[in-house]
Formats: sequence, C-alpha cells, structure tokens
Amino acid sequence: MTVLGIDPGYAIVGYGVVEMKGNRFRTLEHGAVTTRAGVDFNRRLEIIFDGVQDILTRCRPDAVSVEKLYFSNNKTTGIGVAEARGVILLAAQKAGVPVFEYTPVQVKLAVTGYGKALKPQVMEMTRRLLCLKEVPKPDDTADALAVAICHCQASGTALRRFLR
Amino acid sequence: MTVLGIDPGYAIVGYGVVEMKGNRFRTLEHGAVTTRAGVDFNRRLEIIFDGVQDILTRCRPDAVSVEKLYFSNNKTTGIGVAEARGVILLAAQKAGVPVFEYTPVQVKLAVTGYGKALKPQVMEMTRRLLCLKEVPKPDDTADALAVAICHCQASGTALRRFLR
Repeated sequence: MTVLGIDPGYAIVGYGVVEMKGNRFRTLEHGAVTTRAGVDFNRRLEIIFDGVQDILTRCRPDAVSVEKLYFSNNKTTGIGVAEARGVILLAAQKAGVPVFEYTPVQVKLAVTGYGKALKPQVMEMTRRLLCLKEVPKPDDTADALAVAICHCQASGTALRRFLR
Repeated sequence: MTVLGIDPGYAIVGYGVVEMKGNRFRTLEHGAVTTRAGVDFNRRLEIIFDGVQDILTRCRPDAVSVEKLYFSNNKTTGIGVAEARGVILLAAQKAGVPVFEYTPVQVKLAVTGYGKALKPQVMEMTRRLLCLKEVPKPDDTADALAVAICHCQASGTALRRFLR
C-alpha cells in the first residue's frame, strides 16, 4: 500500500509518499510544495493544487492522509490554511484517491505508541521507521511522513481499533 | 462590466451575475450551487468547484466579487466554509478572472449608502437596484448579488474612494 501524507499550508505544503509492505515502511518521495509570500493568494492556491495534482499523477497513491484541522488563536492564518486545504482535498477528489483524516493524538500514537509524545520524539520515530539518515526538512515534510505512517498503521495493523 | 458575486459556503454557494451599464444594473443570472449534507465532504468540494467553473464558462464575468471571511464562534463550520472558499477562488484563478474581496461594511455601504445597514435593508436595496420583483431566495443568493453590486460600485463610481 502506498500512502501520500500531506501537511497543509499555503506557504509550505509538506508531503511524503510512504510504501508499506508487511510491517516495513519505505519512503518513495518526500518534499514540499512552496509558494512565495509576495505572490497573489489565488495564484498560490493554484500552485498548490497543481503541485499536489502532479504528485498524485506521479506516485499514484492508494490513499491520501492528512491531519484534521483545528483553529488556533491566529484566525487569519487559519483561514488561509483551510482554503489551501480545500484545494488539496479537491486535487485528491479529482484524482479519485480517498482521503483519510487523523487527529494529532492519533498520529503521535501511531508513530510513537504514545498519544502525548513530543514533537522531537515523533520526528525521531518517523526517521527510524522510514530508515532515513536524518529527519527530513522542513518540519512540514516530516509531519507529512508521520501522518502517512499513521494511515498505514491504521489500515494494516491492530492499531486500527485504537485509531477509530 | 459583468461581475459574478459569490457568497461562499459548503451547503449553499449563492451566486449572482450582475451587469453594470452606466449607472444601471441588470441581473443576468442568479441562483445557488447546493450540496447535500450526506455527501462525502470532498465530493461536495468537487461539486462546488465544477459548479462555479460552469458559471464562469457560461457567463464570462470580468471579475469575481466575494465577501472577506471572518471566523465566528463556530470554528468547525468555519473550516468547511474556508475550504469551500478555497476551491471557489481556485476556479476563478483557473478561469483567469480576477477576484476582489470586500468587508461586510463595504458591501452595506455600497448597496445602501450606510455601513451599518441591517440585513433586510441591504436585501431590499439589492432588489431595487436590480429591478427585481422580489428579494431572491435563498438569502445566500441575495448576499451574492449585493457583493456583486459592491464591486460594480467600487470599480465604476465615486464610491470607489470609500471602498479602499
């Protein structure tokens, strides 16, 4: 099974494509779709949509995995992130790839076995599970890989019952 | 000048196409793109994107006008609305139509001449300016026509300086 994990945003959209065979994971590709601050916001949405569409066409994942969105205090940024998330979900829908959503606690639980794990622990476990030399940069990419692992675990193992 | 006004949402996307010639307005088309509650959310986003794309192809407006989004207390609904707004902005961008955004105060000022006008007053003035027999239903459609009028006023008349 191949899963595309995405960490939505409008400046940086982290992504990671993870293949699971049995209990082993492998990273097929990871990186970020980025847009510059000075660019018109609607053009940024288009760059994100086109970028995610390219990844979907190239990697043909079985599923897309994203974190559920919660609004923090910065509501203005939150609106932009949600708008970007909308075009990401649309790209998946247009490609006919099902989308699964997980809470931050579900991601931490899947990756570290502990729902209250700290960010560095989640990143280190992500690195280990994927047999990478270093934690991928930017953080958004590492987060995307973690949520991809989360869906792999949820789909394939006993963890599934914890993640419902 | 022809302006497509849109009132974003994920259950009902109100829209109205307004043509301005001199100081006179005319409604070319108005209605709503609707999606049902039981339908998968990503499919709803697709219906909205396709629906707005159809309107843009059919009406070829010179501009799209939408209200600026603010989050109310209902943050969960707010995320869905912003995600829907994202795919609406993407449709305009893909069609090469510029998008203009106005605050609720700007819309009220443009339609009634008074920035603190009440909703029924805005609706009644929208009806009169467009020479319609009744206020269009649902409210989302009337709101969309009001924001379309707002952009017409802002682009073409002395009101422009108030709306910057």
